[in-house]
Amino acid sequence: MIKATQQQTKKHNSQLVLETIYYRGKLSRADVARATQLTRTTVSNVVAELMARGLVEEVGPGTSGGGKTPILVSVASSSHHLVGVEVAGDEMRGAVLNLRGEIIRTAAFPISSRSGHEALALVYQLLDQLVAACGRPLLGIGIGTPGLVDTERGLVRRAVNLDWDDLPLGDLLKARYQMPVYLANDSQAAALAEYTFGGWQPDQNLIVIKVGQGIGAGIILEGRLFQGDGSSAGEIGHMVVVEDGEPCRCGHRGCLETVASVRAMLERAATLAHDAPQSPLAGLTPQVVSLARLQQSLEAGDEVAQQVVAEAGHYLGRAAACLVSALNVRQILLAGPVDCLGQPLLDVIQRELRRHALSPLAEEARLAFGRAGPDAVILGASALLLTRELGLSLTPLS
Amino acid sequence: MIKATQQQTKKHNSQLVLETIYYRGKLSRADVARATQLTRTTVSNVVAELMARGLVEEVGPGTSGGGKTPILVSVASSSHHLVGVEVAGDEMRGAVLNLRGEIIRTAAFPISSRSGHEALALVYQLLDQLVAACGRPLLGIGIGTPGLVDTERGLVRRAVNLDWDDLPLGDLLKARYQMPVYLANDSQAAALAEYTFGGWQPDQNLIVIKVGQGIGAGIILEGRLFQGDGSSAGEIGHMVVVEDGEPCRCGHRGCLETVASVRAMLERAATLAHDAPQSPLAGLTPQVVSLARLQQSLEAGDEVAQQVVAEAGHYLGRAAACLVSALNVRQILLAGPVDCLGQPLLDVIQRELRRHALSPLAEEARLAFGRAGPDAVILGASALLLTRELGLSLTPLS
Repeated sequence: MIKATQQQTKKHNSQLVLETIYYRGKLSRADVARATQLTRTTVSNVVAELMARGLVEEVGPGTSGGGKTPILVSVASSSHHLVGVEVAGDEMRGAVLNLRGEIIRTAAFPISSRSGHEALALVYQLLDQLVAACGRPLLGIGIGTPGLVDTERGLVRRAVNLDWDDLPLGDLLKARYQMPVYLANDSQAAALAEYTFGGWQPDQNLIVIKVGQGIGAGIILEGRLFQGDGSSAGEIGHMVVVEDGEPCRCGHRGCLETVASVRAMLERAATLAHDAPQSPLAGLTPQVVSLARLQQSLEAGDEVAQQVVAEAGHYLGRAAACLVSALNVRQILLAGPVDCLGQPLLDVIQRELRRHALSPLAEEARLAFGRAGPDAVILGASALLLTRELGLSLTPLS
Repeated sequence: MIKATQQQTKKHNSQLVLETIYYRGKLSRADVARATQLTRTTVSNVVAELMARGLVEEVGPGTSGGGKTPILVSVASSSHHLVGVEVAGDEMRGAVLNLRGEIIRTAAFPISSRSGHEALALVYQLLDQLVAACGRPLLGIGIGTPGLVDTERGLVRRAVNLDWDDLPLGDLLKARYQMPVYLANDSQAAALAEYTFGGWQPDQNLIVIKVGQGIGAGIILEGRLFQGDGSSAGEIGHMVVVEDGEPCRCGHRGCLETVASVRAMLERAATLAHDAPQSPLAGLTPQVVSLARLQQSLEAGDEVAQQVVAEAGHYLGRAAACLVSALNVRQILLAGPVDCLGQPLLDVIQRELRRHALSPLAEEARLAFGRAGPDAVILGASALLLTRELGLSLTPLS
């Protein structure tokens, strides 16, 4: 605790006013003064400054409380754009968004098996296209990528699929596009998206388990993304859950990803269907089985699909039990493309969670699918950029 | 973010001044003003108030910077006492401490197999004795107890060994002793003790895995004890680590406590020694094998003891891997009576941690024994009381 200097106070007041206008919508300057407990003069000065920066605009008259009709101010949503990007296992996707996190346009490229410099070139290509498409001053770029990502240093420490090792992606993009760039792990970005745009309760602890080609968790504690000492909190995909199990791309054996990622589920489905001629999945190679087919088979009551879900759910439930035991967080969300498997998958995870963690903790845990949708990582990376660049707290937008 | 009211500011200033004096030792009022950036007048007023409350005292002249010789102030360590209690698996221990957390006197009773009302009566007996022994006004009582403890409500939600269910221990003790009472889980208290008194770096994330009759973790994140939604973060002793393993007192099977608690280790030693006539542990019943004997056998190179340590260490390493994967915290401490098993136990845990978590995270993790010693839980419960009651931040005392 130290007392604020004058300069810190000024910055604090500016962020406080912007945050109030950002999260509460249309307000008069008097409303802002009441909400922030700042004087009207201070608020007027700060609003003038924010208007000069183009972040706030006057949007018309409010209702008079008896005296002069006040003029309402609001965030100038379209005054600036920002770019959000998701580097996924198979695809690179991006969007241009406005200051409210509303998506204006999107673009995507398949990654195929490109990695290293080729994958980086694809990031440039995607960003070139999106940046060129922006009609407004750009606030910056937010990126969610798999692997170990050091947000503070803008460094991708390790992304096995992409063959990126200590890649200074933040600095490379800042130099190329001359604007602020923020990086986060994709699961952490998904958690930011759920917290900001998912309509969950404010100030809630939240764990998001993202299951796609990889598996990771994003952890929101006391209204902030918790990243740990090396920015890599939530790296649960490489916890070993099967002793001497299948080899994993990380060098160990039996990691959670080897038994519960989308790839693992589809491979398991192809293997099991090989000996189950009655299954709708019979005869399909792992390359051809898709999540959509697995879902259809599951809905048709296929035993192979049920077993695949039961097995993956078992391990995901154990991972959830580990997180719940460690953190005693009640709201657990499952995110990523596996949401198409629906309630049957949630039910298995919930059951296994209850079998593997102390009863009171497990019973209080509420498991649900995320609500931020397929653009979650893009939205979360944008939320990271918005909050860091504008100095806003991370707050749910409902 | 809201602007502080005048009353909040006054309270904040008072806490700020007390904290500065508490953590920096002897200071002049001018030193305090410089450190806090408050005006000299404000500091003088606040110090006068703290002196009136008996928390701060003048301790003599400082060195003059040219003008008037300043008078130094310091926390009046012996002006108040506090009582800290540990409810352990087999023993109830307590101490009277001064405001610096220095132990003045101790008392202990064996719990034997007492539980329910009998165990509660023992708490009263211990506290009656300690409170009566205090020669100073008492600041309050801090208690560390196993099980699920709701610190905010002063409630022991569940302590299986003691047969306490939703016991309002805080309210009972407040009513009986007419003073503030703070409760925490024993592993969480141990973590508070390590952070405050262990001489670790300030502002460091810290995970303390406490292994005694039970197993639990205490988690310090960003300088604060993280307790989760129900105060029970760190309840790792009941994560299931052996599918269909031995029954656990919690109702599940194969919990970490069934394979890595002190009790589990001693039972395992007795079982293995049964078939190993050359072992120094041969012929001993689980009741007679002690940690001290296990340690002696380990030092003598006994294979039974080595196997016991290897097996328990394997599971503790997996639990550590789970915590490191979830939280990416680098400093992991092992606390509790198992510290007598020394480096061989740490080595196994470290190896298993590396085998079960993603390499960069596991390799950065530093595993060590705690330094707060056998009174850790008492010290931690006292730190909880001190910080909560005086409004101090949790800060390492070196």
